[in-house]
This record gives sequence, structure tokens and C-alpha cells, in this order.
Amino acid sequence: MAVGLKEPGNLLPVPGVKLATTAAGIRYQGRDDLLLITLSENTKVSAVFTQNKCCAAPVTLAKAHMLKNAPRALLINSGNANAVTGQQGLENAVQNCSEVAAILGLSADQVLPFSTGVIGEQLNMEAMSQGILALESQLLADNWLLAAESIMTTDTVAKAVSRQIELNGKRLTISGIAKGSGMICPNMATMLAYVATDANISSDDLDVLLKRGTGASFNRITVDSDTSTNDALVLMATGKADSVPLDSQGLDAFYGVLEEVLIELATSIIRDAEGATKFVKVEVQGGSSEADCSAIAYSIAHSPLVKTALFASDPNWGRILMALGKAPADSLDMDLVDIKIGHVSLIEQGQPAASYTEEAGKAIFIQDEISIHIELNQGSESFHVWTSDLSHDYVSINADYRS
Amino acid sequence: MAVGLKEPGNLLPVPGVKLATTAAGIRYQGRDDLLLITLSENTKVSAVFTQNKCCAAPVTLAKAHMLKNAPRALLINSGNANAVTGQQGLENAVQNCSEVAAILGLSADQVLPFSTGVIGEQLNMEAMSQGILALESQLLADNWLLAAESIMTTDTVAKAVSRQIELNGKRLTISGIAKGSGMICPNMATMLAYVATDANISSDDLDVLLKRGTGASFNRITVDSDTSTNDALVLMATGKADSVPLDSQGLDAFYGVLEEVLIELATSIIRDAEGATKFVKVEVQGGSSEADCSAIAYSIAHSPLVKTALFASDPNWGRILMALGKAPADSLDMDLVDIKIGHVSLIEQGQPAASYTEEAGKAIFIQDEISIHIELNQGSESFHVWTSDLSHDYVSINADYRS
Repeated sequence: MAVGLKEPGNLLPVPGVKLATTAAGIRYQGRDDLLLITLSENTKVSAVFTQNKCCAAPVTLAKAHMLKNAPRALLINSGNANAVTGQQGLENAVQNCSEVAAILGLSADQVLPFSTGVIGEQLNMEAMSQGILALESQLLADNWLLAAESIMTTDTVAKAVSRQIELNGKRLTISGIAKGSGMICPNMATMLAYVATDANISSDDLDVLLKRGTGASFNRITVDSDTSTNDALVLMATGKADSVPLDSQGLDAFYGVLEEVLIELATSIIRDAEGATKFVKVEVQGGSSEADCSAIAYSIAHSPLVKTALFASDPNWGRILMALGKAPADSLDMDLVDIKIGHVSLIEQGQPAASYTEEAGKAIFIQDEISIHIELNQGSESFHVWTSDLSHDYVSINADYRS
Repeated sequence: MAVGLKEPGNLLPVPGVKLATTAAGIRYQGRDDLLLITLSENTKVSAVFTQNKCCAAPVTLAKAHMLKNAPRALLINSGNANAVTGQQGLENAVQNCSEVAAILGLSADQVLPFSTGVIGEQLNMEAMSQGILALESQLLADNWLLAAESIMTTDTVAKAVSRQIELNGKRLTISGIAKGSGMICPNMATMLAYVATDANISSDDLDVLLKRGTGASFNRITVDSDTSTNDALVLMATGKADSVPLDSQGLDAFYGVLEEVLIELATSIIRDAEGATKFVKVEVQGGSSEADCSAIAYSIAHSPLVKTALFASDPNWGRILMALGKAPADSLDMDLVDIKIGHVSLIEQGQPAASYTEEAGKAIFIQDEISIHIELNQGSESFHVWTSDLSHDYVSINADYRS
């Protein structure tokens, strides 16, 4: 029951990038569950990974490979996270990379492995090996939709987006896919995302773009405050569109489109959050520090009582105030706070707004997409996050699904 | 559906303490919703209150009154929290105290007000006034059960306990009541508790006992990480049992019994947590600091994915490891960690235990009362918390009830 989320539109090939999928039967039957992405020579790759101390074998190996060599291929499986699988799990990930390297004529450290799915079970290596062998013949530039579908777990809709921008007379393309719908919290979550462009961007510039873009997108979404063992966001620039790297003006323009792509992918995850019936933006403004604004935004976005009120379409602003009051903010004067839902004023200077009516509040909360604005009136800093509600289906999905 | 929670047993009067209840009709119909507790002269009173910055009018007033005068009466209403009610709410709380003072021949600042229930609505002052007038004639020493029942909101079982201890040839009594079942998190929650004794304890000693006892009980429980605007725990010592204050040896012995009472009341709240089907203790040992152990215990106890797995009786240890790994602990080496559920070893040195079987895990998780032991093997510090699972009923209760 994704909120306002449609199947991906027209997805554009990115020169230098090919994708192949296959049904390896790792866990799911009758659907693709293995994805190979290949990159042309000289492609620059930047990535961010989960900060969970319990990180999966492929995360450990992907980080190590990126330090050693320039990635030329990414292998992603769904259905099994290869997390908490010990030495055997690491050896399996190494073997996966070697097998991919063999069919592509690369060295193993040019292959980055990624996994998503159940924690604590060893990969079915026979299925993986068979799947890898089947991939090479499927490699196509125009496979972005199949790629997005192959990495889904509890996702109900495939997540993919393409954008183009013309810079210096060259048409640049950005295409990206993502998966994730639960265990989503800032600083990476059960989330995989792969974004490629044919722009020519230096490694250092790519790192800067990715860091900035992550801060504006994937690090601002939360479903349930739970962060996973496997998250990764990879940004790839093949440079095929231009022989000259983007200059700082070009990078700025490019970043604008990249940020759109990243925000669309990140918010797609929230729109498809497990059991979600609402898509909610919590905006905190007027704080004396961004840290305070972030603490307040997440306190509201994580509160089970706020989330159940959202599910009930009940504008229970007492719970919003409660979540605001419990936030670990350094500087918060409740008597200065204004709160609006949509365009409706709820709280003015810490007190119920005289103009507020239950009817007006209900008319906002009954909607699928809700914004909650907190004005702290204490400074000029701000922060916003996107989140979902807490529904019966969230409980059903997570009480029934072994993830 | 309280987990292993029975109706209160035999409740003992505490010399110097009288209690009266009445059905004032503040919100609920056909049940008592107003409680008066009176204290004999020279009773020492110590209290801790919510740390939510959005605290209710009665909390503000009770704190102010305690600074001014020795409390002789407590007025507690259920059904309306008198929170986020502005100047009017504060004036209403003052008026409540004045009316109680008038019927008892006290000054208003000798009365402490407490409220629990819906946030953001003004008290029905006519109902309050009528109720207060009806209370005096009902004052009895033996009214602890009615008192416990009158302060319930979403509670399904009244929470009360009595204990006795003989010290220096004197029999000392402790009786206490509590309410709360959601919006429960450390540092006070939607929780009210009143504990009285006839022991003779100095004000300073009483403060020390309360602080220590709160740390061992009410500050170690969490339902949903949400803390309320109205929480309070009040400890009262009438001194009627003895003319001589307890010495340090006596205080130690007394504390042992007091801690039992506080833990029983605090864990009653978790057993009666909204929608709870499980009563769960999360124990973290072998940490290099108590702060790390606490961060890990709460990360597990708050995780929606762990809580839904508990509801499903699914020993999904991957989620426990995920919650452990995301905890903001300064010092955590996943390769050293051992985890047990009940007596069953799940994880040894960061890897699935060779002896573990799904069957053995399931046999533990199917039980109503579950303990999760984390051994960090990094030091000698420890911490434990009590929590509940996340069920469909939690969502129903909080999507339907305006609290």
C-alpha cells in the first residue's frame, strides 16, 4: 500500500553501464534475485555504507575492495543478507567476487558485493554460482527496471528514476535504483541504492557530491529507527558523456539534478515503508542549532504514539508536543513554539491556537501526505525528515517476515 | 491482556495516611476518577517528576508547592492531564489545590496536584469542585485498592503492593500504587506512583532512597520510548511507626524492601503495557561502562523490529544483533559478544552458536516471560531494562484512544 508511489517511468540507459538480472533461486522463487552491474574503464565510484557495528560480510569486503582497486562490477543479491555469517560468510562473498571476475576478465578486487535479506544464514553458494554464470549473456544498457525489481525484498513497488541535464552542450544522464521499506533510519538503513551517470567527475568531486546528496536524502528518512547491517549507496560516474571533467559551476548544476534523483529514491522508500498509509514530512525551523532541529524532527518521526495517531488520521497534537518535549535538544523553550499541520495552525507560542478546530485538523490528517511544521523561534537553523505512520500492517509484516 | 499480572493482594494501611476516591465524572463515567491522599503532620515527602520539557500544569505547581511548604495532601485526577493548557490550566490547578485546602483546613501550597489523561483540554472545573467536596467524608486508611483503581487510564489491572519489615522491634509498612501502560520510558513516563510508609526517615535520607530506588525500578522500564508530560513518583514517610529516625543500617534494610515495592510497581506497568503479550528483561553485562550497557539495552528494548519479533514469538536473533550494532555505545566489539535467550545460547563470540537450533530458540520465545542476556566481554559494568513487545493491540489502542 505505497503512498502516492507509481511504477517507475521511462528509465534511461547510462553510457558505460550495463546491467543483468537472473532468477538464481537464492530464497525467492520465480523472480529475479541477482543483479550484475558492469562499469566501463575509468568509471569513478563513490560509496557510503551502514554505520551499524554489526555489518555484513559483503559490506566489509566491498569497503576493502574499494581501497585496493577501481570497481568495474557490482554483484547484488536479494533474499539473503550474508550478515552474521562469520568467516564462512566472508569467504563466500570473496568467492562470489572471484566468480564474477572470472566471467568478466577482471580481478576479484574490482568487484563489489552487496546482499540484502535474511540475517544469519549462509548464502546458497550453488545457486549463486549458477546465477553468476547466467548473468553475462544478459548484460544490457537498458535493464534498469529489471535491476530495480531484482533487488526488492519487502518492497511493494520497484524504485527507479532517471533525469537528464544539459551542461556545456552535452546531455548528461543520471539513472538510479533503490530498495528498502523497513529498518530504515538515518545514516543508512536496510537500503541499497545505485546511481550512475555518464558525467565526467573526478573521484574527489564525486565523494563530495555523494556526501552532500546523502545528507539531503537518504540520511533524512526513517521508518522505524532501525538501521541495518547491509546498507549501501553507490554513486558511479562513467565519464562517457564528456572528455573534460565538470568544473565547479557544472558540478553545482549537476548536483541539483543528482539531489532530485537521490531525494526521489529516498522518499520512494518512505512511500513504500512497511505498512505505510501516510507519507509525512517533519520540518523543524528556527532552531539555535541544526543538531537541535534534527533531534526534534527525529523525536517526532520516531515516536510510536505520533505514528499511531498518524495512522488513525487523528490530529492528536498532544502527542506531537510530547515528542517535541522529550527530544534531547540543548535549547528548547516550549513557550516560543509554533506548530502547523499543513496550513493549519495547531500551537502558537506553546499554546493551542485559538483558531484551531478539530475539523480543520482532521481535514489535514485524513490526507495521505502530511507535513508537520515546527517553528522554534529561537534561531535560524532548520532540519527536515520524511517518515511514515505505524500501522497494523507494519506489525503484521514484521511479525510474519523473517528479515 | 496483562502478562502474569494479578489483581493486587492484601493491601495494608499505613498509619498517618488516609485515602478517598470519588466518581467526579471528569471524563470517565461510572468509575472513580478522583483521589485524595492526606498525610499526618511531619510526614516527609520526596518526589521525582517527568523530564519532558513539555510538562503539565500540575507538575509545575506541585514542584513549586514542594519548595514552599511540607505537603499534607495529594489530589490526583484521571481522564485529563491538564497539559498544554496554558495559563488557564495553571489557574485551574491552583483552584483545585485551594478547594482541597479549604475542606482540610490547610494552605493551598500544602496540596500537591497530579493529573493523567488527555492532553490539551481544560479540566471540567465543575466536576472537579463537586468531586473534591465529596472526598472528605470518604477518607479511610484502608482505601489503597480503590485508590489504585481511581488513577487508571488505559491500564487493564490496578497496580498496588504492600510489604512489611521489622526493624529494631518495630513493624514498618510500605504500601504503594501506580498507574501507566503506554508512553513509558526511562526518566519518568505516563506514570504516576505513590508510595507511603510509616517509617521515620529524614527528608535527606528519603531523597536518597527515592533517587536510588527510581534508578533501580521506574527508570529501567520502557514500552515505546515515549515519555509523558505528567509523570511523577512520590515517596511519603509519616514516621508514625517510630519516634526515632532510621539509622544507616536501618535505612539499608528498609531500602531493600522499598526497592522490591518499586520494582514490583514498575514491572507491573510493563506487564500491563498497551497491547503487551510478552514481559521481557534485557540484561547487558560485561560492558566497559554502564552508559554503554544502558545504550545497548535500550537500543534492543526500543527496536520495533525486535519488538514485533517478540510478538511473533520468533527468535529472530538477526534483529537483536542489528539493534545491538546500532546502539550508540562507545566501546563495542561485535566479535566478543555472547547472546543468550533464557538458557539458550544464540551467539558466541559474535557468531551463531553451533549448538543453537530454531526449535530451542522457539521454545524460549513462545513463553510469556523472556530474558535476553547480552555478554559484551569487555568489562565489568552492567545494566538491565524491562520492556514489552509491539503487537496489533498496541496499534489499536493508540490509534483509537486519544491520550
